[in-house]
Parts: sequence; structure tokens; C-alpha cells
Amino acid sequence: MAKASASEKTLQDLFLDTLKDVYHAEKQILRGLTKMAKAAESDDLRQAFEHHREETDQQVQRLEQVFEIVGKRAQGKPCEAMQGLIEEGKEIMDEFKGSPALDSGLISSAQAIEHYEMARYGTLINWANELGMKDAARLLQETLEEEKKADALLTKLAESAVNQKAAA
Amino acid sequence: MAKASASEKTLQDLFLDTLKDVYHAEKQILRGLTKMAKAAESDDLRQAFEHHREETDQQVQRLEQVFEIVGKRAQGKPCEAMQGLIEEGKEIMDEFKGSPALDSGLISSAQAIEHYEMARYGTLINWANELGMKDAARLLQETLEEEKKADALLTKLAESAVNQKAAA
Repeated sequence: MAKASASEKTLQDLFLDTLKDVYHAEKQILRGLTKMAKAAESDDLRQAFEHHREETDQQVQRLEQVFEIVGKRAQGKPCEAMQGLIEEGKEIMDEFKGSPALDSGLISSAQAIEHYEMARYGTLINWANELGMKDAARLLQETLEEEKKADALLTKLAESAVNQKAAA
Repeated sequence: MAKASASEKTLQDLFLDTLKDVYHAEKQILRGLTKMAKAAESDDLRQAFEHHREETDQQVQRLEQVFEIVGKRAQGKPCEAMQGLIEEGKEIMDEFKGSPALDSGLISSAQAIEHYEMARYGTLINWANELGMKDAARLLQETLEEEKKADALLTKLAESAVNQKAAA
């Protein structure tokens, strides 16, 4: 079958493209969180990264359920934005290793990653609703809530001990 | 003077690094918004992109004021994440040109960009406060509020006409 030309492409195609992008992104995040947990100086931050890594495992599984709902094989599509975000996180780990500001930098990188995901899940939920896929929307909403909570926890950690140590 | 080694690096260094990253990102966004405005099918979306382009001009100037506050020359640092986000936006423009889902894709890309900025400005405000730079925090807060409004407007546009057209 010939590939759909642009003018034939629909919101369903856009949904599937973005789903593949997020699937790839989440798998990169799994690896990124493992490294960030190892690098973190504070116990609270390390635990937060480890906990979110477990959540991310679940989020990958939810995405696989959404692929099933749309009747497609779960498949990632390289996500340049997430590659860039992870790259920036690595630079911080290298440049601030041994610095009291390391944890602040790790939190900053993690929050940029969380925000990317929040944007993508918000979009996917909106499109799933437009396309009448209520079950998919519900699964994606569960993940969005987790991302928001993870982001709020990181803000709390940033505002408390971590920055005070870095500024000292 | 020798470059500070990692263990000597402080929150002030991290603030400056991130400021340079955001400065570079905003300049890329200026160009990105011009292209997205040209590509948009709906008048409302085009106007939203044009309006946000004008805001982004102001945001670049505010960043230059923050550089002055910290006594450094305004200078960008290539931001891989924003390069990736802009690249994804370009792919959507190419792949969905002529498709009824084009505007939905443009909004999705723009919201991913907005969320990146919201994360970065949130972090910079937190650090500016920690470092006792109240004027810098105030300037950055003005921009954060604009980014949040721009994101909310895009959600409104996405939920109304654009997606209904794309799903039709």
C-alpha cells in the first residue's frame, strides 16, 4: 500500500506519530532516570528519581495499551527533542559533578523532561477525545497526573534543601 | 583566569549557563514562530503565533536585562533541546502540509516549546530568588506569565475549531 500523501493525512495519523514519539521518549527517560538517580547527591532526590523510574515503567505499558486500542504495533520514533533534553542533562552531570549545585542542575533537567511529557500527553488526550477514544484518553490522563505530581515534587525538593546547599 | 573546575562551580554558574541556554532558545523560537505563522491554516492560529512572536521579542530584551543584572554579556549557548523541538515542528510542517490536521500539529509543536520555556523560567525564578536577585526574578516572572497565557490560548484553539476540522 502506498504511503498516505500529506493531504490525505488525518488527525489519526498525527495521533499515531505523536504516540510513537512519546513511546521513544519514555524509553530514553527510563535510561536517563537511572543515570540521574546514580548521580544525585541528596537521598530525597535519588529516591524521587527511582520512584519516577518505576512510574515510567508503568507509563510505557500504558502507551502499549494505547497502541493496542488503535490497532497498531507499539513502535518508537526517534524523538529529537528528548534526545536534546537528555543531552543537556548529561552535560550538567559532567560539568557540575562534585559541585554543590549538581542536584539543582539535575532537578532542572528533570523538570524540563517532565514539562515536555506534560505537553505531549495533554495534546494526546485532547486528540484521543476528539477521535472518540475514551479508554485511550483515560490511560493517558493517568500518566499526565503522574507527570504533574513528579514535577510538583521536584519543585518542592528544589525549593527546600537542594538550592540552599547550592547557594551556601 | 583558569576556568572554574566542577567542584568550584556554584548555583550562580548554573544560573548563568541556563540563562544562556534560554537566550539561545528564545532566538530560535523567534525564527520558528515566523515559519509557523506562515504555515498556519486558521487566521486565529496565525494571529496567535504573530502575537507571541512580538512577546518573544520582549522576552529576549528581558533576558538581556537579566544578563546586565548579573554583570555578564548577553550570550547564547546552543540549546540542543530547543533545536530538537524546532526540528520536530519542521517535520510536522513538511509531513502534514495540505492536511486538515496541519494546524493541530503546529499547536502541538508550539505547546511543547512553551512547556520547555515554562520549565526553564520556573527554574531560573527559583534560583534568582535563592541568589537574592529579586529584580531578575521579577523580570523572569513576567515572561513566565506570558508563556502560560500563550499555552492556555493554544489549548483553547486546539480544543475548538482546529481539531474538529482535523477529525472531520
